[in-house]
Amino acid sequence: MNDDKAQIHDLLEVFTRALHQRDSAAAIAPLAEDAVVFDLAPPLRMGPEASHDPAILEAWFATWTSPIASRSHDLEVAVGGDVAYAYGLQHLTGTKADGAVVDLWFRATACFRRDAGRWRITHMHNSVPFAMDGSDRALLDLTP
Amino acid sequence: MNDDKAQIHDLLEVFTRALHQRDSAAAIAPLAEDAVVFDLAPPLRMGPEASHDPAILEAWFATWTSPIASRSHDLEVAVGGDVAYAYGLQHLTGTKADGAVVDLWFRATACFRRDAGRWRITHMHNSVPFAMDGSDRALLDLTP
Repeated sequence: MNDDKAQIHDLLEVFTRALHQRDSAAAIAPLAEDAVVFDLAPPLRMGPEASHDPAILEAWFATWTSPIASRSHDLEVAVGGDVAYAYGLQHLTGTKADGAVVDLWFRATACFRRDAGRWRITHMHNSVPFAMDGSDRALLDLTP
Repeated sequence: MNDDKAQIHDLLEVFTRALHQRDSAAAIAPLAEDAVVFDLAPPLRMGPEASHDPAILEAWFATWTSPIASRSHDLEVAVGGDVAYAYGLQHLTGTKADGAVVDLWFRATACFRRDAGRWRITHMHNSVPFAMDGSDRALLDLTP
């Protein structure tokens, strides 16, 4: 693996560890100042202000009683100059405040830019598909 | 806009026009041979074989009686060397075979690689968020 790809993997690892520890500042630190996030939960689009707002992450972290564990599968990373992208499936597990046990596979895409020599996350897109059978149900029980 | 960004815009325009004309071969032509697609509908992940299968697109096209119109909003494109990404909101409109009028905003991220001098789509990720209120409903009525 070349050095740039290793740095992208490291940056994603920083984010994953921040989720695990439910540390909002550590989760926001890897974001570029213009980061735009399309997340599992609404809104449709989180612009730079919302994506850097620790209160939004903390409200979500507060719904968990366990560490939030997230593991990457089939992660593909491509780097060109000061631009990179990564995509793969994430397996999210843990326990919510209401006792629910979460075991969720979702799709994750991240985009990166090297700013002043440091890779930053410019964009994250996390999702599950939905059933086109008229139920409009989000498909939270799919596995690879 | 530099030439590479213009070529990315053109490639997305080719795909958009293919959707509008419900032309499966034209929609598949911009895909890299290793393309992986995370789409609005299941499965969780479409690998290179599924993403290049015209029958899957044609089955979806057959559920429409109008052209499938899709317009990009707030499209951001970044290029570095032979790698690029783009993300933005898409506004999809048209009429389905059952008479339903579709007016859907969704999030779209695409990744690109220049192969033998030609930009190709290596990855597409399309989604809507879902309600985390216990209903697990896909949110198909959000607007920017």
